[in-house]
Amino acid sequence: MSREIPYKIYLEENEMPKQWYNVRADMKKKPEPLLNPATGKPMTAEELGVVFCDELVQQELDDTTPYIDIPQEIRDFYKMYRPSPLVRAYCLEKKLDTPAKIYYKFEGNNTSGSHKLNSAIAQAYYAKKQGLKGVTTETGAGQWGTALSMACAYLDLDCKVFMVKVSYEQKPFRREVMRTYGASVTPSPSTTTEVGRRILEAHPGTTGSLGCAISEAVEVATGSEGYRYVLGSVLNQVMLHQSVIGLESKTAMDKYGIKPDMIIGCAGGGSNLGGLIAPFMGEMLRGEAEYKFIAVEPASCPSFTRGKYLYDYCDTGMICPLAKMYTLGSGFIPSASHAGGLRFHGMSSTLSELYDQGLMEARAVEQTDVFAAAEEFARVEGILPAPESSHAIKVAMDEAIKCKETGEEKTILFGLTGTGYFDMTAYQKFNDGEMSDYIPTDEEIAAGLAGVPKIPGIQ
Amino acid sequence: MSREIPYKIYLEENEMPKQWYNVRADMKKKPEPLLNPATGKPMTAEELGVVFCDELVQQELDDTTPYIDIPQEIRDFYKMYRPSPLVRAYCLEKKLDTPAKIYYKFEGNNTSGSHKLNSAIAQAYYAKKQGLKGVTTETGAGQWGTALSMACAYLDLDCKVFMVKVSYEQKPFRREVMRTYGASVTPSPSTTTEVGRRILEAHPGTTGSLGCAISEAVEVATGSEGYRYVLGSVLNQVMLHQSVIGLESKTAMDKYGIKPDMIIGCAGGGSNLGGLIAPFMGEMLRGEAEYKFIAVEPASCPSFTRGKYLYDYCDTGMICPLAKMYTLGSGFIPSASHAGGLRFHGMSSTLSELYDQGLMEARAVEQTDVFAAAEEFARVEGILPAPESSHAIKVAMDEAIKCKETGEEKTILFGLTGTGYFDMTAYQKFNDGEMSDYIPTDEEIAAGLAGVPKIPGIQ
Repeated sequence: MSREIPYKIYLEENEMPKQWYNVRADMKKKPEPLLNPATGKPMTAEELGVVFCDELVQQELDDTTPYIDIPQEIRDFYKMYRPSPLVRAYCLEKKLDTPAKIYYKFEGNNTSGSHKLNSAIAQAYYAKKQGLKGVTTETGAGQWGTALSMACAYLDLDCKVFMVKVSYEQKPFRREVMRTYGASVTPSPSTTTEVGRRILEAHPGTTGSLGCAISEAVEVATGSEGYRYVLGSVLNQVMLHQSVIGLESKTAMDKYGIKPDMIIGCAGGGSNLGGLIAPFMGEMLRGEAEYKFIAVEPASCPSFTRGKYLYDYCDTGMICPLAKMYTLGSGFIPSASHAGGLRFHGMSSTLSELYDQGLMEARAVEQTDVFAAAEEFARVEGILPAPESSHAIKVAMDEAIKCKETGEEKTILFGLTGTGYFDMTAYQKFNDGEMSDYIPTDEEIAAGLAGVPKIPGIQ
Repeated sequence: MSREIPYKIYLEENEMPKQWYNVRADMKKKPEPLLNPATGKPMTAEELGVVFCDELVQQELDDTTPYIDIPQEIRDFYKMYRPSPLVRAYCLEKKLDTPAKIYYKFEGNNTSGSHKLNSAIAQAYYAKKQGLKGVTTETGAGQWGTALSMACAYLDLDCKVFMVKVSYEQKPFRREVMRTYGASVTPSPSTTTEVGRRILEAHPGTTGSLGCAISEAVEVATGSEGYRYVLGSVLNQVMLHQSVIGLESKTAMDKYGIKPDMIIGCAGGGSNLGGLIAPFMGEMLRGEAEYKFIAVEPASCPSFTRGKYLYDYCDTGMICPLAKMYTLGSGFIPSASHAGGLRFHGMSSTLSELYDQGLMEARAVEQTDVFAAAEEFARVEGILPAPESSHAIKVAMDEAIKCKETGEEKTILFGLTGTGYFDMTAYQKFNDGEMSDYIPTDEEIAAGLAGVPKIPGIQ
């Protein structure tokens, strides 16, 4: 007989994970390695070490060790804002009048407002351990930049953030959070880098792009003594750190004898989804259990559902290594009307390989439906979700409504990655009825994919 | 031997309070009653019932019942975002290198961003129970309006918020949160009320004030069938509901054998401070324990430290009943440079009486010191605090530093009422070095107090 389920399940501190779980170790067919675009050969540890911290390079390349110890310093930091609650959505169930049992793992109760902090502290910690002075990164809307600046402030590490200029100007609040945490925030493109100056010369008045900000951050990291570059999604190391989400979820569910039938997460670069599903996917890969996994992406940036599984650049600027992933082409940019985040053109290699093997499903949803679900959720569950997270809410609600129709008492787990407090411009658009949907045409998708590089002997 | 103290103490759901605690019941000398400004006589239940819900009027007037049951529906709502964590500030202690043990009760982990939700749901519940259609209120920066709109959305109750026009225009994000929760938000003064039209005629182009917004909200509540007016601070009923903060804190501390030496809270109208100290003050009033209580207020709006204990209007518009309280005069408005919240001219009658009896201390702090403390706190504890809450942080840090000097291992508890995500304009001012301090002159204080009404036979 299982215990009565509270509204929120909080683990005790001593129940929090002491190791991250590396799902690649349990994959028979592994994700493809990163390639050096100049040689078409797998990136070596040495090559990667120019850009990334040494220990993170090891984690990036290690696809055989299933459990990796979480250093005590990181575990102490985790205790400041974790464990995050596993919430039973009693109010949402009642509102939907569904026999389904809905749970969500809520990662928004920290000042970065999302799960990004889980990897930010890990990456900052290894930089500090390596004796570095600081790290550089890019940020779009600012979630990742905020998380990284928090981690760096805690470890007394310098943090240089290149923020896409249009966000820098239109989202001054996130910028101020980063500054409050002591980060330097530079609007990109800037005149502080060679690549920035070159871009400004070619495109005077440009409001910037993530690709350009990455290029500037990498230039500063590789050109400055004692700096490395860090990235908040897509990479294997990020999936590893984010496994705390899934590990905590699983421990909490096991404690109450709950087994999810399906696990749903939003997917941009894949950091949250990869972390949430990791231990459950591990069980499935080892033949110990069956789950249905659903990746939810925006219909306006549909890497899984309309992209191709190819080697592509991770950045628009084409200076990073090539990753094999579901991609829309590194030149693909979602429509200007897109307001829901998750705008990366590709997807984590690990998740791409799992999807390619048929171990995971994917759904694309339109943004007005996503915001409608977000609003309904906010009103009954009391949390104003981030637009990104609301993609998962939408599909969780769809599945719960299906259960109502069929009478099935399925158990649904989804990832509520963060809060929408810095996304009120998008909510305002929705509240004012001025939000529209956009689905790229087949021609637009084909045009993006035409930019994927041809690699002799590979593709 | 006490157990090892985790970073965060979360109560189990079944340990959450089932009753609110009414500190007035244990006071030998009670707070003075509200007076009808027309007659100078105590307000009757009937008179108050025109403006407030019946059950809330009873709670307002009841100064003898120590414990009042929390209805099950409200307890269920509390479970959505409570228990709030009692946090051991290990990182702050380390940073300050103090032998003091610092704890804070963090009320910011909900979408309203503050403790205001504790009373909002209670007031909305009683309105619903009375069969009303909706409630009206005023809001300045929007914390209380957000909390009320969340509670009303949950109970399917109409919510009309009059938001001070300057905030409505300058803080569009809070406004959008309220709209997302289905509230109607009207910039005040508006043309929708008689008093609004009158004010607009007299002062074309005015950006409004809290006093004016209160007047409009009260006019709509008393003039519409099925509506009542609700208020987020100052009132006895609000102190009662907010006692959940102190009750949870005390249960958590008792569980680990912790006894605070001092309890510190910020004080504007007194809702958080009153709630936090309630059960501890009760023990002291009953002679069971000794604590030091410290109210922290802005030096620019120093009701306790420079105001007088007199009957005064609660609103600038002088349409509400008179309350005996520490006041700066209902016409007192803090300097335009004031950015830290807590700008109410008076103080809860209950807290005023406790302060007058010498059971509580008060300190006034300047805002640049407050923001510096906020930033230091944010960097080590990972939470970006609301400016209001940061007043308590400042004094808690001062006390911890004193302990370092004297070597005393004091236990400090303070209330961290909320997060500063919607206050980044003030942080930006601080980050840019553009924030200044302002202390009213003796003449300004005297001018404010000159506006306190003369009441024949009373003052």
